[in-house]
Amino acid sequence: MPNTSITINTPAWLEHFYKQSKDLDSSIESRMDFTIKIAVQNIKEGGGPFGAAIFEKNTNNLISIGVNLVTKSHLSIAHAEIVAICAAQSKFSNHDLSKVCNEGVELFSTTEPCAMCAGAIPWSGVKRLIYGATKQDATDIGFDEGAKPENWIQEYKKRGIDVICEVNRESAKKVLLEYHKNKGIIY
Amino acid sequence: MPNTSITINTPAWLEHFYKQSKDLDSSIESRMDFTIKIAVQNIKEGGGPFGAAIFEKNTNNLISIGVNLVTKSHLSIAHAEIVAICAAQSKFSNHDLSKVCNEGVELFSTTEPCAMCAGAIPWSGVKRLIYGATKQDATDIGFDEGAKPENWIQEYKKRGIDVICEVNRESAKKVLLEYHKNKGIIY
Repeated sequence: MPNTSITINTPAWLEHFYKQSKDLDSSIESRMDFTIKIAVQNIKEGGGPFGAAIFEKNTNNLISIGVNLVTKSHLSIAHAEIVAICAAQSKFSNHDLSKVCNEGVELFSTTEPCAMCAGAIPWSGVKRLIYGATKQDATDIGFDEGAKPENWIQEYKKRGIDVICEVNRESAKKVLLEYHKNKGIIY
Repeated sequence: MPNTSITINTPAWLEHFYKQSKDLDSSIESRMDFTIKIAVQNIKEGGGPFGAAIFEKNTNNLISIGVNLVTKSHLSIAHAEIVAICAAQSKFSNHDLSKVCNEGVELFSTTEPCAMCAGAIPWSGVKRLIYGATKQDATDIGFDEGAKPENWIQEYKKRGIDVICEVNRESAKKVLLEYHKNKGIIY
């Protein structure tokens, strides 16, 4: 099977959120609230309880949205953060998002990134990571988040990436708890 | 930009290696030697000095090949291991490679996986990882491998994944050193 094509199609319903983003202010709370709404919609659409979004810093520009598409794409890498990063890089045809806009880009994730996503972010050119629910909140409902180094936030700082933790955590955690209560698949 | 499609096309020249794999025995040394040849060819084709391949354990079946396609695909996630994992999962339309064959599948990588790839492997269904050159060999020529937990191999074991380290390391390291000597791009 040479010349394989590997494809992730992002869902059509994201269009609604792209349109809605025009009315957002650039505060981290508003952007996280928006990203949480995406995770809620992804559950309704039959996906996992995770959402991510990439914005240009200090502007109103939403660059990309990611949702967990592991089962739909048949790809174990298709976590929300990876989908958002790939969608942004595909949009600009550039594997380095630090080069695509003057202000730099920031990644919002409704839950602390797993080991894979935490490893992927430093290669993406993202300059700031903002997350909601914690690793503990995700493991409490049965998700394996993998093994990250304890000092991962310091390792990010060394590479020029800031991390803002637990923004709107209670709302983000509520999404995980609701998913668990409704017996959502844990994978 | 809703409904984005994210695509990685694997190169046509891999066909030669798919054909050649019919003559391989299932020893880890032969399989690693084969994977190193893929990395060498990827450099000749203008890519990075990394190769990966997924085989069914204890049979002669090559399942997929991965090479570093970061610059060609404009995706920072497109490391050799990720490409091999995605190609295998796309082939079987299954995000869990532990389900696709009776014997289980094993991933060969010419260099110890970076933080992202090491995080991705436990989600893929791969049952054994075999690598050649070490993280130190890669950092010695300037690649940033990211921060993995010190006990990552134990964490793999907990999840039922074996790791065999430094198979044909000297040959694998030689590929990195040659790449460096010829002023290959470090990204």
